[in-house]
Amino acid sequence: MKIEIINTGTELLIGDVINTNAAWLGQCFVELGLEVSRSTCVPDGAAIQEALGEACARVDVVIVTGGLGPTMDDVSREGASAVFGLAMDFDDEVLAWLTAFFASRGKPVNEHNKRQAMKPRGAIVMPNAHGTAPGLYLPAELGAARGLNCHVFLLPGPPRELKPMMTEQVVPVLRSLLPDGNSTECRYFKFTGMGESDISMALQGALEAIGGLEIGYCLGKGDVDVRLRGSVAALDEAGTLCREKLGEFLVSDDRRLLEQVVVEKLKEQGQWVATAESCTGGFIASRLTDVSGASGVFGLGLVTYANEAKTRQLGVPSALIEEFGAVSAEVAAAMAEGCLQVSGADHALAVTGIAGPGGGSEGKPVGTVFVALASKGRATEVRRRSYPGGRDRFKMLTSQTALDFLRRRLSGFDLPGE
Amino acid sequence: MKIEIINTGTELLIGDVINTNAAWLGQCFVELGLEVSRSTCVPDGAAIQEALGEACARVDVVIVTGGLGPTMDDVSREGASAVFGLAMDFDDEVLAWLTAFFASRGKPVNEHNKRQAMKPRGAIVMPNAHGTAPGLYLPAELGAARGLNCHVFLLPGPPRELKPMMTEQVVPVLRSLLPDGNSTECRYFKFTGMGESDISMALQGALEAIGGLEIGYCLGKGDVDVRLRGSVAALDEAGTLCREKLGEFLVSDDRRLLEQVVVEKLKEQGQWVATAESCTGGFIASRLTDVSGASGVFGLGLVTYANEAKTRQLGVPSALIEEFGAVSAEVAAAMAEGCLQVSGADHALAVTGIAGPGGGSEGKPVGTVFVALASKGRATEVRRRSYPGGRDRFKMLTSQTALDFLRRRLSGFDLPGE
Repeated sequence: MKIEIINTGTELLIGDVINTNAAWLGQCFVELGLEVSRSTCVPDGAAIQEALGEACARVDVVIVTGGLGPTMDDVSREGASAVFGLAMDFDDEVLAWLTAFFASRGKPVNEHNKRQAMKPRGAIVMPNAHGTAPGLYLPAELGAARGLNCHVFLLPGPPRELKPMMTEQVVPVLRSLLPDGNSTECRYFKFTGMGESDISMALQGALEAIGGLEIGYCLGKGDVDVRLRGSVAALDEAGTLCREKLGEFLVSDDRRLLEQVVVEKLKEQGQWVATAESCTGGFIASRLTDVSGASGVFGLGLVTYANEAKTRQLGVPSALIEEFGAVSAEVAAAMAEGCLQVSGADHALAVTGIAGPGGGSEGKPVGTVFVALASKGRATEVRRRSYPGGRDRFKMLTSQTALDFLRRRLSGFDLPGE
Repeated sequence: MKIEIINTGTELLIGDVINTNAAWLGQCFVELGLEVSRSTCVPDGAAIQEALGEACARVDVVIVTGGLGPTMDDVSREGASAVFGLAMDFDDEVLAWLTAFFASRGKPVNEHNKRQAMKPRGAIVMPNAHGTAPGLYLPAELGAARGLNCHVFLLPGPPRELKPMMTEQVVPVLRSLLPDGNSTECRYFKFTGMGESDISMALQGALEAIGGLEIGYCLGKGDVDVRLRGSVAALDEAGTLCREKLGEFLVSDDRRLLEQVVVEKLKEQGQWVATAESCTGGFIASRLTDVSGASGVFGLGLVTYANEAKTRQLGVPSALIEEFGAVSAEVAAAMAEGCLQVSGADHALAVTGIAGPGGGSEGKPVGTVFVALASKGRATEVRRRSYPGGRDRFKMLTSQTALDFLRRRLSGFDLPGE
């Protein structure tokens, strides 16, 4: 079954509103074992009819969002009636409902609102419990006279109206249209610490050899998702392969983020982590505390941006800072060890580096960072990394590296080399 | 000039990634006085060629994002060459650059990476300072033999690569294609601490009375942008109006973020801030240190997630925590005052609240937070706020409130009431 989505609304095209509906609807179809083949954004007005006509000729199901409001630029109803060649009628039940709705607010239904009771002849009304715009379903047979064979659903644009209508009213219809035995699934293998092309070099051939798998790569911020679709048996085989070939780089096979995996592993092992951050300015702590329940594994984070703070809060000797510089392996290690002591945690992550754009030197250019992990009863380890390319990227990749060191330690893998 | 955007990437259609590029590009065109007539999302693979062919026949400029990576499903280059009917060549300069790039990381260029050096014959390479995928510009004349008259830009998908390439390399080309005399400008007035509809109630009539202004409202995360397009004279008049009517809520008129404004004001006044965070887990410190040069105004942040950390690091009496609870005005004030002392800063921000989903009670439901500001030689002030609706939103709005308190203090405005 081929599907397209059409999102209408000038606000989407001029960038006032980010189109979150398309992604949410895409996830709905993935859960049904289906994939959207195209999504299109058009402005309010006549463009809706043009885009709908094109889509109906290409696919089996079209979802239209928006354009069901009361104003004159809301023309999804009219667009569908033109594409299907159907007259427009008032729906008496909807008109009665609208009249009651406005009466309950002490207002009469005005002429603009009455437009929301119109529908292409034969369309099925989908009630809207969260707004005044009912949805409409045009079954494929309504377009037969025009040579079309496409089911069209017109849904409201606001997410809080769209989502329940999709889940409660559209999805059951879609399920009834699906052939039985559609048994592929989607699985995500999230890797970190290795580049996209290296991962594809290591896996692509072997994944292709399994057969029956759709393979996609998605570069995230500091990680790479290998997205596989296929039978459960093929996916299980692929999972074994990913673990054998790249197990130490594998964060999750169920969409959990690195910080979630770290918090869960700490919980399982009954251990605590503390953080001492310079250049990341609290971002590592913030990522850890994005995870619900982080309070069971994280009690203290120190953002020691100034050298004096490193000395006073973490006990890093100022002589050490003078000798090696605040951005050095020695200071990173001392920060981690100081943090372990101050916090009483089982593990302490520390980072010190040059986020830029200023502060670089020849030996330590912008992007240089030292990441240290101290754990109770073990020798502290430090690695040097280079993440030039802006403060946001620097903070993201540095925090990713630090959290990944802890994931590795908690999973029994060595830290990677320099 | 008619424009379409094509965003490629299966991850967009299956809802793994929300398409923020379309909205950002839409804003770029609004700033040029142009509007995108359609944006289309297609999966990786052959669909790119189909969508590009259709778009080139409809409009004057097409922006394609994504599909420039090294993996076999990245086929924007091939799609454009097919649509324009051009052979594919290796670009020697790009190949040399890629070789040097990987050599600097101690790696050879592999065969997949080499694909990134290919281009349709005659296409102009746009260097990518933030990744390995160069952009490509196919001027309209390259498609003349096929009867096309459309400029095509192939840009990388990751926003941190896309944005600088668009701003620095594509926009100048677009400007050169535009007729002269496009003399309106766009200006953004960023407000915080006031809702979108209240801002529009306060400003809309007076802005309309100025005349010649296009007015748009864009709700951000904790702030609202009023976007005005018009002559410089009309924009200056609008600026005076915004300051007169809502000056205390006005963060910037030049797109600077709240954290940038705060860091700059601290710098101007030669003052320091420190932070003591519980429920935001380092996010306030992280926002401050997103600003280049934050090290001149921020030296120490404490993430005291556990009660014991509040007592040991900030000197909050454990009796106080027992009497009023960790989430209370009293503890927030004690955290701020402790932080002021420990850090020696001029101002200290402290927050304690319930991010959820657990931890709420009848008197203090999930989303409850206390925000305190202590400043040298002044009485500490605390405000209670409620930000239910998920951890991300909670952290964002709480940090926004805290930073805005400091902006107000540094600007000579009182803190808002409860």
